[in-house]
Amino acid sequence: MFQDFKLVGDRPVAIQVKEYVKRLIIKGALQTDQKLPSTREMSGLLKVSRNTVIAAYEGLEDDGFTYAIPGKGSYVAAMVGQSAVDNGGADGSAWQIDWKTRMNEYAVSAVELDMMKQGIRAPKGTISFTSIAPDEQLFDLGNVRRAFMDRMAIEGQVLLNYGYAKGYKPLIDYLMHYMENKGVDISGKDMLITGGFTEGFDIVLSALRPSARRGAAICENPTHHTAIKNLKLQGFEITGIPMERDGIDVERLEAVLQTNSFDLAYLTPSYHNPTGIVMSPAKRSAVMKLMMRYQIPVIEDGFNEELRYSGSHIAPLIATAGQGNGVIYIGSFSKVLFPGLRVGWVLGDRALIDTLESIKRARTIHTSTIDQSILYQYLLNGNFDKYVKKARTEYKRKYELTKACCEAHLPEAQLSGDGGLHLFLTFPTGVHTRQLLEACTEQGVIFTPGDKFFIQEGEGTNTLRLGFSRVTDENIERGIQIIGKQARSFLKA
Amino acid sequence: MFQDFKLVGDRPVAIQVKEYVKRLIIKGALQTDQKLPSTREMSGLLKVSRNTVIAAYEGLEDDGFTYAIPGKGSYVAAMVGQSAVDNGGADGSAWQIDWKTRMNEYAVSAVELDMMKQGIRAPKGTISFTSIAPDEQLFDLGNVRRAFMDRMAIEGQVLLNYGYAKGYKPLIDYLMHYMENKGVDISGKDMLITGGFTEGFDIVLSALRPSARRGAAICENPTHHTAIKNLKLQGFEITGIPMERDGIDVERLEAVLQTNSFDLAYLTPSYHNPTGIVMSPAKRSAVMKLMMRYQIPVIEDGFNEELRYSGSHIAPLIATAGQGNGVIYIGSFSKVLFPGLRVGWVLGDRALIDTLESIKRARTIHTSTIDQSILYQYLLNGNFDKYVKKARTEYKRKYELTKACCEAHLPEAQLSGDGGLHLFLTFPTGVHTRQLLEACTEQGVIFTPGDKFFIQEGEGTNTLRLGFSRVTDENIERGIQIIGKQARSFLKA
Repeated sequence: MFQDFKLVGDRPVAIQVKEYVKRLIIKGALQTDQKLPSTREMSGLLKVSRNTVIAAYEGLEDDGFTYAIPGKGSYVAAMVGQSAVDNGGADGSAWQIDWKTRMNEYAVSAVELDMMKQGIRAPKGTISFTSIAPDEQLFDLGNVRRAFMDRMAIEGQVLLNYGYAKGYKPLIDYLMHYMENKGVDISGKDMLITGGFTEGFDIVLSALRPSARRGAAICENPTHHTAIKNLKLQGFEITGIPMERDGIDVERLEAVLQTNSFDLAYLTPSYHNPTGIVMSPAKRSAVMKLMMRYQIPVIEDGFNEELRYSGSHIAPLIATAGQGNGVIYIGSFSKVLFPGLRVGWVLGDRALIDTLESIKRARTIHTSTIDQSILYQYLLNGNFDKYVKKARTEYKRKYELTKACCEAHLPEAQLSGDGGLHLFLTFPTGVHTRQLLEACTEQGVIFTPGDKFFIQEGEGTNTLRLGFSRVTDENIERGIQIIGKQARSFLKA
Repeated sequence: MFQDFKLVGDRPVAIQVKEYVKRLIIKGALQTDQKLPSTREMSGLLKVSRNTVIAAYEGLEDDGFTYAIPGKGSYVAAMVGQSAVDNGGADGSAWQIDWKTRMNEYAVSAVELDMMKQGIRAPKGTISFTSIAPDEQLFDLGNVRRAFMDRMAIEGQVLLNYGYAKGYKPLIDYLMHYMENKGVDISGKDMLITGGFTEGFDIVLSALRPSARRGAAICENPTHHTAIKNLKLQGFEITGIPMERDGIDVERLEAVLQTNSFDLAYLTPSYHNPTGIVMSPAKRSAVMKLMMRYQIPVIEDGFNEELRYSGSHIAPLIATAGQGNGVIYIGSFSKVLFPGLRVGWVLGDRALIDTLESIKRARTIHTSTIDQSILYQYLLNGNFDKYVKKARTEYKRKYELTKACCEAHLPEAQLSGDGGLHLFLTFPTGVHTRQLLEACTEQGVIFTPGDKFFIQEGEGTNTLRLGFSRVTDENIERGIQIIGKQARSFLKA
């Protein structure tokens, strides 16, 4: 025995010895009340220092795997409860549950609607336009480290104990101020910090979903596929309104509102995903007047509002509403800053936020205090403004390069996208972008087929989304050239 | 104008100037196309350096609030979309929604069941036995800082970009190994990392809740009030089985199982909350045999299993099940380590975890990578074992002090609690602990009335929970003395 002990490089040796002996006890290689080798013997057997063995033996006793008899040594404690059912099962076999039969509709749909699980697996070296995550090469790690150390120095232990469901107070105050600077009237409003946009959206939907019947939601078509997923999972029927060059088709919207009733509207007025369109000021005011007339709560997706490359600042819908409380704004810096920091915020009517706070507490207690405090200190240190300036410059350059390449190599496709980290292409009907994707994949290029952003099966089969944030200039050119070549062969056919 | 500019200490001046001008534009004090003072004038007006003003003006242009005319200066851009609805509303008033009428049952119950919102507000200086959060004075901040810096040095940017819904791979591998060392057979099992126990529990319930009818759950009575809340919010009818000195009443359990069917069982076999009881090995095996016979999935709450003060290691139920897949184990270090790091894990059947992963992705994308990587590196560095040893020693001391004080000053109360961070007291019927609490609050002492841990209204009105982890030795003695004095006056009456 003790011949198969192997040290691994990166962990304290005493702990490795302790765990090695635990395994022998659990496997039954060491029996209850059996005496362990003396610390001297063991250090010889395992070729580790005697102090290491002494520490390991202490650990075993602390964890209740051994007991010591003073002057005699360490003995294996009774391993109680081990595999009681294995032995107990009538035929000695282990207890099996067929979990598939236990899963409800929600769980089954969550898997069916999980795009990550149907995502395109591409070989290394593939040029991928599928991501709209930020380019991590831009991340200013030094400032993030400093933000963490600064905050730890100021608050210390408090950051590691329980926080508040509503969020980290200094961050809430900062973001309220931040939203005021976008023109939002914050009187009568409050904020809930969440683990990103998705949690905020799902919590809001879970509160607004009707108890008795299925919910009814209205949104732009196409729209963010995660939003479509969450709406469906929360039991909403979705009515999509087509997009025009300057945003949602207001006449269609009004027509639908006249004939149907809705529990909520989900809108992305700036750098809409996937079309990248910015809703014009005229339409913003027209849409808001309609929502007011028909009393339909608006969930506004603040999604990379910060990634504006040109034109003047356009106030979000929640600013347009002034003192009105009909808009719930969900913000996040995931696309402009660091997605790994899971922080987003829900800004809305104070009474509403108070209810959402209780739902947040019931679901996750509170958002990571470390993430919130790092983000807060990073903002406070003024790193955010500098970083966004740098990121905007870089992304704008890539945006223009991508646009130029599309105009050169994909003249047949209609382009949209006024900012953000992606462009949206619409081909003449007949070009099926899923078939195009297959052809391109063989040539080592992938993108996101647009149909998955549409509400109804079979819509948008001639569209695709190009995310450029994580593609090199060279690959942007090569990739789009390849897509262009494949597209033309489809157009000929 | 520009007279009311005030500098606040802790933020970059250029940003403060930028935001000050933004406000003037938003308020309409600066009109569209109005020329801003030259950078020289402005630096005089605001008494800040000219370079600061130059930086601020650049920022305003970047954010689309101004435009520059070369050689002439900066001009206010059109503030589009501002308060369109305010002015648009027929009577000019803002759009109001009565959110109360829009909230569904789930939202209303979330508020009603939110104990934090009915929590006892006690004046400063009150001796509070209500918390079972760890004592933050014990936190080894230095090692947490080091863990963060180590991990950042190794992985850098990757930690700040999107992670995986399933969790941070190195942490999953580490925790699988950790559970193996508790005697768990991990073959056929997998793990999902969540933002703590509560998220894991809520996700599991959301998958097992029947679609068509209300669910039926069985659990110890009393039990963890957050678990009761989540079960109710997910639409489960709860059947509670009374506790005995060595755990759940197995005969009652069997009787109930014979006559009713259940979708799941929720059990806390070690350091049960609130009674602190550890289920005996004999009962563990008896309970598991029953659950196997009646095919009832078991959700095991690993709660503070690590806070064992005496006796030998007792394998968790999931270890008892051997290769069986009927137990879902939910673990967390929140009570033994740092609650602020929102990390927990769900260990169970591989196919089940695969489904839960999709639900996790739909709800929060993934758990904070920073939290996960700090915890991983902290474990890897061997800090966990050292810390738990230190924490155990300190909590064990307080545990024994609290116990001794109860025996001295509350002889009438029956004590339970074999470990963990709290003791549970049961008084002769007739002593109403909510009335006792009122009397004690006046004397500057508060605790948690036990009834909130019971399934039915009116149960456990003669019980209370004493959390000692964050109370000083002196206050433990003084506090329990005061409770004793008040209790006796109730007993006389």
